[in-house]
Amino acid sequence: MSDGLKDDMMAMGRAAHAAARVLRESSNDMRNAALRAAASALRARAKDILAANRKDVASAQNASAAMLDRLKLSGQSIEAMAKSLEAIAHLPDPLARQLAHWTQPNGLDISRVATPIGVIGMIYESRPNVTADAAALCIKSGNAVILRGGSDSIHSSRAIHAAMKEGLRAAGLPDACAQFVQTADRAAVGLMLEGLGGAIDLIIPRGGKSLVARVQAEARVPVLAHLEGICHVYIHEKADAGMARGIAINAKMRRTGVCGAAETLLIDRSILPTLGVAVLGDLKSAGCEIRGDGAVCASFPSARPVSEEDWRTEYLDAIIAVKAVDGAEDAIRHIETYGSHHTEAIVTDDEATAEHFLAALDSAIVLWNASTQFADGGEFGMGAEIGIGTGKLHARGPVGVEQLTTFKYVVRGTGQARP
Amino acid sequence: MSDGLKDDMMAMGRAAHAAARVLRESSNDMRNAALRAAASALRARAKDILAANRKDVASAQNASAAMLDRLKLSGQSIEAMAKSLEAIAHLPDPLARQLAHWTQPNGLDISRVATPIGVIGMIYESRPNVTADAAALCIKSGNAVILRGGSDSIHSSRAIHAAMKEGLRAAGLPDACAQFVQTADRAAVGLMLEGLGGAIDLIIPRGGKSLVARVQAEARVPVLAHLEGICHVYIHEKADAGMARGIAINAKMRRTGVCGAAETLLIDRSILPTLGVAVLGDLKSAGCEIRGDGAVCASFPSARPVSEEDWRTEYLDAIIAVKAVDGAEDAIRHIETYGSHHTEAIVTDDEATAEHFLAALDSAIVLWNASTQFADGGEFGMGAEIGIGTGKLHARGPVGVEQLTTFKYVVRGTGQARP
Repeated sequence: MSDGLKDDMMAMGRAAHAAARVLRESSNDMRNAALRAAASALRARAKDILAANRKDVASAQNASAAMLDRLKLSGQSIEAMAKSLEAIAHLPDPLARQLAHWTQPNGLDISRVATPIGVIGMIYESRPNVTADAAALCIKSGNAVILRGGSDSIHSSRAIHAAMKEGLRAAGLPDACAQFVQTADRAAVGLMLEGLGGAIDLIIPRGGKSLVARVQAEARVPVLAHLEGICHVYIHEKADAGMARGIAINAKMRRTGVCGAAETLLIDRSILPTLGVAVLGDLKSAGCEIRGDGAVCASFPSARPVSEEDWRTEYLDAIIAVKAVDGAEDAIRHIETYGSHHTEAIVTDDEATAEHFLAALDSAIVLWNASTQFADGGEFGMGAEIGIGTGKLHARGPVGVEQLTTFKYVVRGTGQARP
Repeated sequence: MSDGLKDDMMAMGRAAHAAARVLRESSNDMRNAALRAAASALRARAKDILAANRKDVASAQNASAAMLDRLKLSGQSIEAMAKSLEAIAHLPDPLARQLAHWTQPNGLDISRVATPIGVIGMIYESRPNVTADAAALCIKSGNAVILRGGSDSIHSSRAIHAAMKEGLRAAGLPDACAQFVQTADRAAVGLMLEGLGGAIDLIIPRGGKSLVARVQAEARVPVLAHLEGICHVYIHEKADAGMARGIAINAKMRRTGVCGAAETLLIDRSILPTLGVAVLGDLKSAGCEIRGDGAVCASFPSARPVSEEDWRTEYLDAIIAVKAVDGAEDAIRHIETYGSHHTEAIVTDDEATAEHFLAALDSAIVLWNASTQFADGGEFGMGAEIGIGTGKLHARGPVGVEQLTTFKYVVRGTGQARP
């Protein structure tokens, strides 16, 4: 690694730390003004952004169709980015929250108040719109951010970042509130994972499994990671048939590439030949490949045999693993063994079984009679999200602006000394 | 490392994971019954515990007086441990909390409910009472715990752990809710820091700087660390003189060995020759060594010159570093540069200055006109604490039973599929 890169990155860390102090004391109006001005700048610079994006697309001709799809921008997607910044500006101020307040018998007045986390290191891959979304969520929540996008989208991200900087300047906030790592040198990621000399408070990786795994293995600072979504739908024997069919097809097929898409379907053995076969027929007709255990293959002969590995696989594709289970406890055991603590749904009309399922499972989101595809900050009414946390600490489920804050205790006294 | 140790530790991890599932679904009454039965067992086994403690003390004859003081148990300290378990049992159920609840326009009923974290790895040093306190806080909050105490106190901790196990059995809870690592082999700590094959959700280190530093450097799972408390008291020029003198002496000298003890005193230059000298005189009379900057030494000739290193030092002793500052902003800058984000106090009668200090500083606890020694879960009304968090994520300040929980989203629907 060159000394130059290290010096540059450390300087970014110091600048971010200083900007975080300014953001911590900034008003919500000021932060919103920056986001609204950045939205205007995105619109005004649309031509430049599209030109930059064409460079990235031209260099990516060997990439998969899915990757090109993630990379490619259009006038419409730039307008969507601008609208998203305005929507984030419109959210309530996440820092104007008193989380608790009480008075001790000795007269000490104690409150727990929301505060920004500080400096967030955002490490992502080819989607250039993350540059705008992540910067906006961080600024709204009073955090400075250091953005490190994938080299595939570096021209697009640079052009989008220029618009964000224009927004910050228009609102009188320092450029360093949202810095973009200009080099494609991967050593920059390593330096961020070491924390830039204590400057970075939190790393958020957003991308594929290998990126998140590298971040979790190497980071010397806290990580808010979104790992795989191996989401389950369990159809209980007392499920309403129409509801089960509607939820199963939606959970799997609405969009197969999102983390809240169902990857495994668990069906009570008693209803496998009836409702189970109807559900599998729906999925097959919709183009989904069925991989089943012995009982499933016996009832639904066009299913392929499932392997042990399938239960641990996030397909992100039109494939589903299907298992016959003997009641809720068996379903819970399967999910606890193979799941990723993301999102699980039960379909049943039996309240006691549903409540047992909801209580027993240790996943970020558990649903009763609703599709796993609702696992999304927007659908939860949080506005935009920076990701979906699958860890247990700090934030689980959709991570929006409130989840990008922490808190401190403010104690007001009248001269109290501790006896 | 022996294969035997690794196998044993992995088996502890699996047992803890299974016990965590039982605790997650246990009632508050059951968990409280375990704590109350453990308190009775501690009292009934006091003689055995004291005998075990004498073995530890006999092996520690070369230890410092401070360490012997931490290690040594008495009938009184065992009774205090038992009372602490009963007090923890008496706290409200931290799992019976609905943290948020709303209904989306599509009818989805969403609630955020408190849940246990899962399995906590507690790594501590010579204080044997941590064995009882930490186990009790974890059980109360529905977490299984793997306790790894210091080798200095291993006989005492084993004897205390036997009482905890008796309590769990009496309440019908698995032994593995609170396991104690029986070996003094330090490789056991390394295995815990790697997470025991995914079984450990959170590591809490409690001990000196080198222990916490090792844990933070090596842990592959999240850590809730309490680093140093380099706490500051800032006496503003508009401070009430009596209040300033009372708070300064209490913050430094009430107990010098606690993390909330003040280590640095900042005094406005304009009041240094008057109120400042009076405060320093109080401290000196109480046996405190004063290390001052040039202005302080000029006004208070018995002060020794302070070094740069002093500003970063947690003395945990009757020594204080003192600096003359030019107003609140100068004080804030010093604290941001040298502090550890633990606890800081301002003494002033000027509300605007106080509010600026409280808002600008990014420490877990900020106080106005009160002593830093209030940085304590008990003094905050939280009951017992497992430590004081100085990180920014999940929990800051005193970590009590509520802070040992996380949450999940429970979504109740009527068949909703996502459009």
